Amino acid sequence: MNRRMVLNTLGHIAIAEAALLSLPMIVSFIYKEACAWAFLITIGICLGVGFLLKFTSRPGTKVIYAKESFAIVTYAWLMMAGFGALPFVISGEIPSYIDAFFETVSGFTTTGASILTDVEAMSHGLLFWRSFTHWIGGMGVLVFVMALIPNISDRSIHIMRAEMPGPEVGKLLPKARDTAKILYLIYIVLTAVMIVLLLAGGMPLFESILHAFGTAGTGGFGIKNDSIAGYSPYLQWVIAIFMLIFTVNFNLYYLILIRKFKTVLKSTELWSFIGIVVVCVAIICTNIYSMYNNFAETFRASTFQVASIISTSGFATANLNDWPSLSKAIIMLLMVFGGCAGSTAGGLKISRAVMLVKSVFRELKKLLHPRCVKVVKMDGKTVDEQVVGSVNTYFAIYMMCMIVIFILLSLEPFSVETNLSATLSCFNNVGPAFGSAASNFSCYSDFSTLLLSLAMLLGRLEIFPLILGLNPLIWRKR
Amino acid sequence: MNRRMVLNTLGHIAIAEAALLSLPMIVSFIYKEACAWAFLITIGICLGVGFLLKFTSRPGTKVIYAKESFAIVTYAWLMMAGFGALPFVISGEIPSYIDAFFETVSGFTTTGASILTDVEAMSHGLLFWRSFTHWIGGMGVLVFVMALIPNISDRSIHIMRAEMPGPEVGKLLPKARDTAKILYLIYIVLTAVMIVLLLAGGMPLFESILHAFGTAGTGGFGIKNDSIAGYSPYLQWVIAIFMLIFTVNFNLYYLILIRKFKTVLKSTELWSFIGIVVVCVAIICTNIYSMYNNFAETFRASTFQVASIISTSGFATANLNDWPSLSKAIIMLLMVFGGCAGSTAGGLKISRAVMLVKSVFRELKKLLHPRCVKVVKMDGKTVDEQVVGSVNTYFAIYMMCMIVIFILLSLEPFSVETNLSATLSCFNNVGPAFGSAASNFSCYSDFSTLLLSLAMLLGRLEIFPLILGLNPLIWRKR
Repeated sequence: MNRRMVLNTLGHIAIAEAALLSLPMIVSFIYKEACAWAFLITIGICLGVGFLLKFTSRPGTKVIYAKESFAIVTYAWLMMAGFGALPFVISGEIPSYIDAFFETVSGFTTTGASILTDVEAMSHGLLFWRSFTHWIGGMGVLVFVMALIPNISDRSIHIMRAEMPGPEVGKLLPKARDTAKILYLIYIVLTAVMIVLLLAGGMPLFESILHAFGTAGTGGFGIKNDSIAGYSPYLQWVIAIFMLIFTVNFNLYYLILIRKFKTVLKSTELWSFIGIVVVCVAIICTNIYSMYNNFAETFRASTFQVASIISTSGFATANLNDWPSLSKAIIMLLMVFGGCAGSTAGGLKISRAVMLVKSVFRELKKLLHPRCVKVVKMDGKTVDEQVVGSVNTYFAIYMMCMIVIFILLSLEPFSVETNLSATLSCFNNVGPAFGSAASNFSCYSDFSTLLLSLAMLLGRLEIFPLILGLNPLIWRKR
Repeated sequence: MNRRMVLNTLGHIAIAEAALLSLPMIVSFIYKEACAWAFLITIGICLGVGFLLKFTSRPGTKVIYAKESFAIVTYAWLMMAGFGALPFVISGEIPSYIDAFFETVSGFTTTGASILTDVEAMSHGLLFWRSFTHWIGGMGVLVFVMALIPNISDRSIHIMRAEMPGPEVGKLLPKARDTAKILYLIYIVLTAVMIVLLLAGGMPLFESILHAFGTAGTGGFGIKNDSIAGYSPYLQWVIAIFMLIFTVNFNLYYLILIRKFKTVLKSTELWSFIGIVVVCVAIICTNIYSMYNNFAETFRASTFQVASIISTSGFATANLNDWPSLSKAIIMLLMVFGGCAGSTAGGLKISRAVMLVKSVFRELKKLLHPRCVKVVKMDGKTVDEQVVGSVNTYFAIYMMCMIVIFILLSLEPFSVETNLSATLSCFNNVGPAFGSAASNFSCYSDFSTLLLSLAMLLGRLEIFPLILGLNPLIWRKR
């Protein structure tokens, strides 16, 4: 492996994190909060480590293969979360480093699961950093670095492939760096529009920015103890709709920009996504109708929760724990589905679910007509058999990881409902769970907190890069 | 489709069921029980329908293709369960037909889930029939018919393929009928040995026969309200060991008979099975140690429950509901694994689980070395890519079915633990569940009882044959 290239890139990323940390530091200064020092110290550490790595490991060649990209992605995410947790600990607002690490991983992976029991007691600076990690992690830490920093490699598509969610990474433009820039541009514009709409509804600027960060990254960290429940119906609708907007494949927005409307309308994943949302909202509406005063309220609560869970955000306007079994089961199913590939959402991804269903139907047809050649089609085009096979294998490893995490989490004395929903929630980067973990994850031990942190990383990086990146064998020289 | 051939075969099966029903009728006569009449009436109905079908639809050609076999298997199982439920209803011992149907499906599919609240109140004849369905269903209703009745088709391997569990059906001998005969011979001998060993431990003859039926079919219907808990440690060990024996692929016993010991020792599935049992017993032993008086008791309880669940029998010597979360999670995982292919056990089958794990590792290697050609090996031989693909797809449809059943079962007001374990238990043909369904399934509504009956059939017939058989399109003429 090209070790120097990996370490050099990690150096770049540490420096980039220092730059990112300056924003919450400025916020702390504005609000005259003591945590500004915590940010300053962390920035110092990031810069120190960053420049050390950058200058001690100048790569001879800039070529990046699959191996290097897995290592870069794995260690970049671990490093970002590792440093990102420091301000919480140094400021004393989250005394345990493990808890702070969980909170930061939850931020970067856009999970939104929290160990905080009273979020309103946090300082503005740390609340900003917490939500800002959602926004950075949503589109990808490395995609961000690639878009901003001078061309780090000619083959950076490998890195994008390892970090971007979904079965296939669409290269919008020949150069990976240009694709990254366009994706971030769309991301920034949509976030800005959302902030304006929230401000128009009377939400204060600070809260608007933080909620827009949490929505854009489909993260879900709230800044109120009752999440979004206390805001007006208008603000709830804005957040619900933007959660859905950020769950759609960003490539489709690019296609809209270049006026390829027909290609957008042909998207199998888009229509499946719309179908799932409509059906689930309808079922939950019927199921919870008796719990609410009128149809408008029921419809809003159902739509908000469906949008929140399928987008894997995790904002809440209702206490899911009180919902009937059917709605809970559907919520757990939506956690698994997740959003569209190439969006900021987590989960299995709808395109994978659709391909799985299609490959099952193909198998049924094959059994009846063994000699017919059948293909799986998406967006009107035949899907490569390699991709179909990979999606099936991905599903197998996805379920295996979930089972292993669930079994290990069962060392905790909580109910199957609590442990299973916590597993589903963290692994799919959703956020909220049921039972004892309904309001926050503070009930779990240090071991389980670390386990769930790993689950969030596995889910966000889609398993393979992390497993391969953590394998010490890939560090061998060629 | 060759409709006449399908109907004619169904006629044969109805007549065979009449013959099978004569055994419990004789038992009822011996114990001078009123339910003998219920059996007599049912036998009359079976014979009437059987001969009607047989003589009205003499097939022109005896050829059976995949389509015909799916239809035969589907409708044979529905018919067997439909008629088999009648004695319970006619005798009045299970007044509701839906409940009786559930009980009979649970018997034939070797699930062992019961709606009975007091099994000791049942008559001997019906208890015999209930356990006898396990024994018939274990090796396969149609395999049984094929072994006994004059050659119904030259291509009956299709039927075996549709009914026998596992990813690949091993043809021991060139003729499917001969293979069926050998499998049944091994089955009968092992059952007889078990009866003798139970008698030697002081169990009465009637109870020995019924427990041997339940163990051989890996069914699990008990005839005591506390299942096996009241019997001596010796008897518990005999049942535990035979549950494991009946969970091994029967082809291995044939290989032992013809002295191919080396091939047996090369079996990847056998070693994986042994490994899983040892690891799970060890973990559960450690986990429940504090609940028992000494090591012997802990070890017996752990081994018995692991054997009972991995064999998908469902006999019990302990109340699983009281076990800690970790043991419960492992029990639920074992429900999914199930036994070896080609045994009487249910579940996903260990060979499929092993192939899934291997295909995941292959995918990991492929990502690191994209140009290498990697194969999946079992028993030292390369597995056909078609089979690997089919196993992956099977896993996808297996999970989909489970999710759909769980969501529909969530219409019931029980906890996630109850509904999820009931789904896992019925779909994998295990039997016991947790929570409200821990002792029996009488808590569920008629809708859910039918849903779980369908789940048991889907699990036993491994999904595809039932889905295709129930599809009305296959009845079309060519």
